[in-house]
Amino acid sequence: MKINKQRIKNNLTAIGEIGKNKNGGITRLAFSSDYYKAVDSLKNLMEKANLQINQDNIGNVFGKRSGKYDSFPSIMLGSHLDTVKNGGLFDGTLGVIAGLECLNILNEQNISTNHPIELAAFNAEEGSEMGGTFGSRVMIGLQDPSEKALQSRLKNYDLTSADLKNSIRDIDKIKAFLELHVEQGVVLDRNEIPIGIVNGIAGITRYKIIVKGETNHAGTTPMNLRKDALTAAANLITKIEKIATSFTEPFVATVGKINVSPGAVNVIPGKVEMVLEMRDLEQDKIDLAIEKFKTEAKKIENAKIVFNKMIQKPPVETDNKIQNIIEKACNDNNISYKFMASGAGHDAKEIARKIPSGMIFVPSKDGKSHCPEEWTNWDDIYRGVEVLLNTILLLDHKMSESI
Amino acid sequence: MKINKQRIKNNLTAIGEIGKNKNGGITRLAFSSDYYKAVDSLKNLMEKANLQINQDNIGNVFGKRSGKYDSFPSIMLGSHLDTVKNGGLFDGTLGVIAGLECLNILNEQNISTNHPIELAAFNAEEGSEMGGTFGSRVMIGLQDPSEKALQSRLKNYDLTSADLKNSIRDIDKIKAFLELHVEQGVVLDRNEIPIGIVNGIAGITRYKIIVKGETNHAGTTPMNLRKDALTAAANLITKIEKIATSFTEPFVATVGKINVSPGAVNVIPGKVEMVLEMRDLEQDKIDLAIEKFKTEAKKIENAKIVFNKMIQKPPVETDNKIQNIIEKACNDNNISYKFMASGAGHDAKEIARKIPSGMIFVPSKDGKSHCPEEWTNWDDIYRGVEVLLNTILLLDHKMSESI
Repeated sequence: MKINKQRIKNNLTAIGEIGKNKNGGITRLAFSSDYYKAVDSLKNLMEKANLQINQDNIGNVFGKRSGKYDSFPSIMLGSHLDTVKNGGLFDGTLGVIAGLECLNILNEQNISTNHPIELAAFNAEEGSEMGGTFGSRVMIGLQDPSEKALQSRLKNYDLTSADLKNSIRDIDKIKAFLELHVEQGVVLDRNEIPIGIVNGIAGITRYKIIVKGETNHAGTTPMNLRKDALTAAANLITKIEKIATSFTEPFVATVGKINVSPGAVNVIPGKVEMVLEMRDLEQDKIDLAIEKFKTEAKKIENAKIVFNKMIQKPPVETDNKIQNIIEKACNDNNISYKFMASGAGHDAKEIARKIPSGMIFVPSKDGKSHCPEEWTNWDDIYRGVEVLLNTILLLDHKMSESI
Repeated sequence: MKINKQRIKNNLTAIGEIGKNKNGGITRLAFSSDYYKAVDSLKNLMEKANLQINQDNIGNVFGKRSGKYDSFPSIMLGSHLDTVKNGGLFDGTLGVIAGLECLNILNEQNISTNHPIELAAFNAEEGSEMGGTFGSRVMIGLQDPSEKALQSRLKNYDLTSADLKNSIRDIDKIKAFLELHVEQGVVLDRNEIPIGIVNGIAGITRYKIIVKGETNHAGTTPMNLRKDALTAAANLITKIEKIATSFTEPFVATVGKINVSPGAVNVIPGKVEMVLEMRDLEQDKIDLAIEKFKTEAKKIENAKIVFNKMIQKPPVETDNKIQNIIEKACNDNNISYKFMASGAGHDAKEIARKIPSGMIFVPSKDGKSHCPEEWTNWDDIYRGVEVLLNTILLLDHKMSESI
C-alpha cells in the first residue's frame, strides 16, 4: 500500500520545529510549554484525520479511529512526543507521526479494520524527575502511587494523585501495542539492514563497585609496596570487558562513571568508586556475569573490592505472535530484517508488561541518538512506516481470527 | 656522643604546638602568622644556643656558630618550618630541631669545629603558589626573577624583587648542606632499617594522556562495535603498572588523576584524560619508560591515545663524598642503613644543584606523611640526630683535609 512520503516528512519536520535550538538540536522536555505546543500541533493533525481525540491529565494524547466492531479492544500505535535536552528529530516523534500516517492511509483507502485503531502520544518517556516512561507507566497503572517523594514531584507539575488515577486506562480495551522507533544503536546501520524486529527489551542491572586500596605518596612508595586502587580498578575493567565480550548478544556491560580519590597527580589512589551497568534479555545471564566479575575481583591483589547493587530492572519480552506478524509484513514486501533486542528502554517496555506489544526499529546513522546529529535516512523512515501499516492490517486480521 | 633526647622531644613538640588543629594535625602554611610564630620560637632557641641569627626578607632564618677558622665556608644544616595543610609533626621541623640539637651538643661539649656551622630554617618548602622549595631556591639564586606572574604572587606576600635579590646567599660561603628528614615513604619502615642515606632525589616527569574513543549509548551498542575510551585507558594503566614494576627501583609510575567524559552510567565513555607521573634518579630510564608506554598504547585497539608532556624536573644527585661520610657515621656507631633515592622533593634537592649536599632519612611509620598520622618513633629520631652529629664532625674534619 502506498504511503504519502511527503506528508510523513512534512509532519515530522513540523513537529521538529517545536523546541528547536540554534544548533539544530531539539529540546522539548516533558511538561514544558514546548511539549504542550507539540501536543496541540498533533491534535490538529489528528483532527484533520478525523480521529476522536482524548487528552488525559498527565499530558498523554490519544486519537481513535473506529473499527467495524467498536466493542473490540483497540490496536494502539504510538510513542512519545517529549525529547531529551538537545535531542534529535526522530526519537519518539517518529512513532507518533508514523502511526498517524497509517491512519491517514486507512482513511484515504477507505479501509475498515475490525478493531478500533488508536494513536497514542506519550509524555515524559525520557529520563526526568518522574523517572522515565512516566506517561505510559501511568496509563497502564504501573506507577506506584506510594512511591517516595512522588507527591512533591507531582506538585512541581501541578498534578495530583487524582490526575494519575484518572489517567489510568482500562487495559482490557487495548488489544495490542505497536511502536516504531529509531534503533539508537549501530547494529542496523553497520549491517545495512533496514528493519529490526524487537524480540525483547533488555533488563538493566547496575552495581556500584568500590575498590579500596591505600593512599600513599606517589614519589616515595615503591611499585611493589603499593595498594593502588586505580590499577586494581583498571585491572577489573579490562576483565569485565573481556568477559562481557565473550557473552552472547545482546549482553553488554559498561563502566561509564568512575571517581578516584584523592585524585591528585602525585598521590597513589586509595579509593575508586565506579558504576557498572549490565543489560540483557535474560536476568540469569546478567546474574551469571556479575558472579564472574566478582570472581575476577577476588583474584585482584592489594585491593578490597565490594559490589553494591543499585538497581535491577527486569528484561521484558515482546509478544511472540506480534514478532511473527512483523516478520510476515517484512517478508510479504521483500524487506530484509533482523530480530534484535532493544538495549534502551521505551514506552513499549512498560506497556508490554500488561499488553501484547511489538516494536519495529529503523536504523540510526552511526548509532547516534539523544543529540542533534541523530539521523535516519528518509527511505528507511518510509520503509518503517510501510512495515508498521502492513503489521497493523495483518494484526487486525489475525487478532480477529483468534477472538 | 650523647645527645639530649628530652630536649629534642621538647623542642619538636613545642614547635608542633604552633598551628596545631583540633584533630592533631598541624597547619603552618608558608608566610602565615603561625609560620612566623614558629620562626620566632626557633629564634629564641637559637639565641639560647648563642647562635648569630639572621633572618632574610623572605622568611628564611639562619643561626651561625663560629668555627676555628671564620674565613672557612659554613657547613649548613637544616630543613623547613612550614607545613602542608593539616600536616604532621616531623616533616621539615625535624631537620631544623635536629640541627639545633647538634649545635647545642657542640656547645656543651666545647667542641670547636674548623668550619662555621650554620642552622637554616627555610620558608615555603611545601607546595604553594610560590611553587615549592621557594626559600631554598631563592637562597641559592635559582628563583628566576622573570618567572611568569611572579610579581603578582610576590605582592600577595608584600614582597618585592628586591627582597628576593637581598635573600640570595653567596654560595661560595656555604661548603656543604646536610638535611635530616623523615622518609615519607614505606621503605625504611617495612624493612626495619633506621637510616636511609639518600643517593639522589628523583626527577619528576608528568604526561597528560588523552584517550579518544567514541561516546555511544551503553544499552544499544554491542560489545564488538564499541570504542570505549575507559576500557582502553584501563588497559593502558595495567600495562603501565606491569612495565613500571619490571623497572629497577627507585622507578615509579603513577596514574593519580583520571577524568572520564561524559561520565554517565548509561553512556560509553568517549574520552579519558589522565595524568601519568614518573620518578627516577635517571632521566634516561624515565624516557625509556615513556617510550615503552607509548608502544603499548599503539597496540590498544579502538582508541587513539596521545601523550602530552606537562613537566620534566630533572633528577638531582647528592654528593658522593658526603654519602660516604654518612655511611661511615653509621658504621662507626653500628647503625644499619640503606642507600636509597628520595622520591619526594626537598630543600636539599634545590641546594644540591649548587652546593655539595647530603640527606639522611629516618623511617616514617607506614610511610604516612602530610597528614596528622605522620609518625616516627622517638628512638629513630634520636638515632637520626646522632648520625647527623657524627656526620657533621666527620665532614668538618674531612673537608678541612681537602682544603
